[in-house]
Amino acid sequence: MTAPRYDVLGIGNAIVDVIARAEDDFLVAQGMHKGGMALIDEARAASIYNAMGPASESSGGSAANTIVGVASFGGRAAFIGKVKDDELGKAFAHDIRAARVAFDVKPATDGPSTARCYIMVTPDGERTMNTYLGAAQDLKPSDIDEATIASAAVVYLEGYLWDPPQAKEAFVKAAEIAHKHGRKVALTLSDSFCVDRYRGEFLDLIRKGTVDIVFANEHELRSLYETADFAVASVALQKDARLAVVTRSEKGCVVITPDAIDAVPAMPIDSVVDVTGAGDLFAAGFLVGHSQGKDHRTSARLGALAAAEVIQHIGARPAVSLKALAAENGLVL
Amino acid sequence: MTAPRYDVLGIGNAIVDVIARAEDDFLVAQGMHKGGMALIDEARAASIYNAMGPASESSGGSAANTIVGVASFGGRAAFIGKVKDDELGKAFAHDIRAARVAFDVKPATDGPSTARCYIMVTPDGERTMNTYLGAAQDLKPSDIDEATIASAAVVYLEGYLWDPPQAKEAFVKAAEIAHKHGRKVALTLSDSFCVDRYRGEFLDLIRKGTVDIVFANEHELRSLYETADFAVASVALQKDARLAVVTRSEKGCVVITPDAIDAVPAMPIDSVVDVTGAGDLFAAGFLVGHSQGKDHRTSARLGALAAAEVIQHIGARPAVSLKALAAENGLVL
Repeated sequence: MTAPRYDVLGIGNAIVDVIARAEDDFLVAQGMHKGGMALIDEARAASIYNAMGPASESSGGSAANTIVGVASFGGRAAFIGKVKDDELGKAFAHDIRAARVAFDVKPATDGPSTARCYIMVTPDGERTMNTYLGAAQDLKPSDIDEATIASAAVVYLEGYLWDPPQAKEAFVKAAEIAHKHGRKVALTLSDSFCVDRYRGEFLDLIRKGTVDIVFANEHELRSLYETADFAVASVALQKDARLAVVTRSEKGCVVITPDAIDAVPAMPIDSVVDVTGAGDLFAAGFLVGHSQGKDHRTSARLGALAAAEVIQHIGARPAVSLKALAAENGLVL
Repeated sequence: MTAPRYDVLGIGNAIVDVIARAEDDFLVAQGMHKGGMALIDEARAASIYNAMGPASESSGGSAANTIVGVASFGGRAAFIGKVKDDELGKAFAHDIRAARVAFDVKPATDGPSTARCYIMVTPDGERTMNTYLGAAQDLKPSDIDEATIASAAVVYLEGYLWDPPQAKEAFVKAAEIAHKHGRKVALTLSDSFCVDRYRGEFLDLIRKGTVDIVFANEHELRSLYETADFAVASVALQKDARLAVVTRSEKGCVVITPDAIDAVPAMPIDSVVDVTGAGDLFAAGFLVGHSQGKDHRTSARLGALAAAEVIQHIGARPAVSLKALAAENGLVL
């Protein structure tokens, strides 16, 4: 096994976020489930965009946000995902490369446009997402290059990849290659509705060891085990997973291993502006710590730090160097 | 003279801002003049974009920002400017309409893409702009509809319109129509380099009364009269203009009339995040006050309030309702 070239390689839906402020009434009028992610078709995308307020566009995508976070911490990072060669696709590619992430997937030259996620941020800072998958659906197993996968210490996959059928195949192929080369595979459950769609398959991935590290939030964990009891769900996950981290917003997180369920507090902050990217950036911090051999508590603190940064401004990617922020907070990388 | 349908109609370059954080070193390496606006061609645009960091896109354009500010104060507002029917052009049109601004100019179906302004925001909150005019150059006199111009109490024009030759003709046509119908014409000098390019013509517009209200900042005023002495320049403007407002950043502004030069303080704020749009939003507040018959000091306070709001976040348009903000600050509209 050669030394890895990348600390973390992410595979996910390559998405541009279209972010607008909205009142709770707007969500009700539009039939949106607050805090969730709904998949929408092109007609619904046009209808939502038409109804929503002035917006700004910035690169997003769950795993892509995580990978940019890894790079911001100074980690060596790469991303695989599919855009079209349209204006938003070019912006996505620019932004991820400008963040010092290797991104070499060829854009689609025809078919649907680059994926967009219409995000409504309500006054409480909660975000409600509507995703038009567009070109992201064209991520295929042939986009998964064995040499690239083999060169990353951890391959990080988003549960949202289960939505586009070919992307799911690409996911499974990547996981197999990673394990063949002695690398680790991490998965985020992404969203409680996503868990609801693919519960059996996600449990299978975890129980069979296709996945070495599981990231979830409280809602996703409860959905996975179909229980309202967090403690019950945690113990169930402890039986199934080798390593899992469950985030609980301002209550911090728990790191779950076969030996222990260990709570780590969140970083205190003044006020929440926009929670978009909180889970993604938590995973970035944890993965960076993990890839550098830090203990789980330290890795979780790095995750909490990155999550705290991203929820204090609009947008799902860090606005400052996370490496510098970690140093300021006594977490040396 | 019938009652106006709009309080303010803006005419300007329809631009999408591409905003990134940058260190001062980057400006030096790129040969950019900090705080200024440079016109760039497509090749230079590609080169800057390639070199700059991760960015977010949001609708901009000086007069467009002002008009959105007017609408946010509850003013009746319309905008004339040219985009192409590409993704960014659609975003521009969406954003300005979503801000409740009437915008009916047909997008260009061929020719250059929608105008983009690459904005570097340095850690001190200063912005440095590089504008690729693209489709904005296609604004023609035929886009100026007499009935629309006649229906606005004030026509607000940006000095930047002097850059695209046909837009300048459109500017002059609009001013003539406005005066024919007994409306007022306002002009912002836009940028000290812009003033340097068109000093004689701008002075002509002011001295001949083509323009009733002049907006400038300190740098633009000094450039207009080619003097480093603010007092000298102010007295010179007092001789030339009927009504002028000169903004001076944290020093507030002066309202200049034939009878007086009256200083009005800025709104105190905690910290400057991004000064993009400060002058544009100041003009919005002043014009709203003016159109509702407020005295100049009250109008200037509304301007200061709007400027203070926009410099406390990334982006050139208000993030909250300026009408509500004005009410909270005892400035009832």
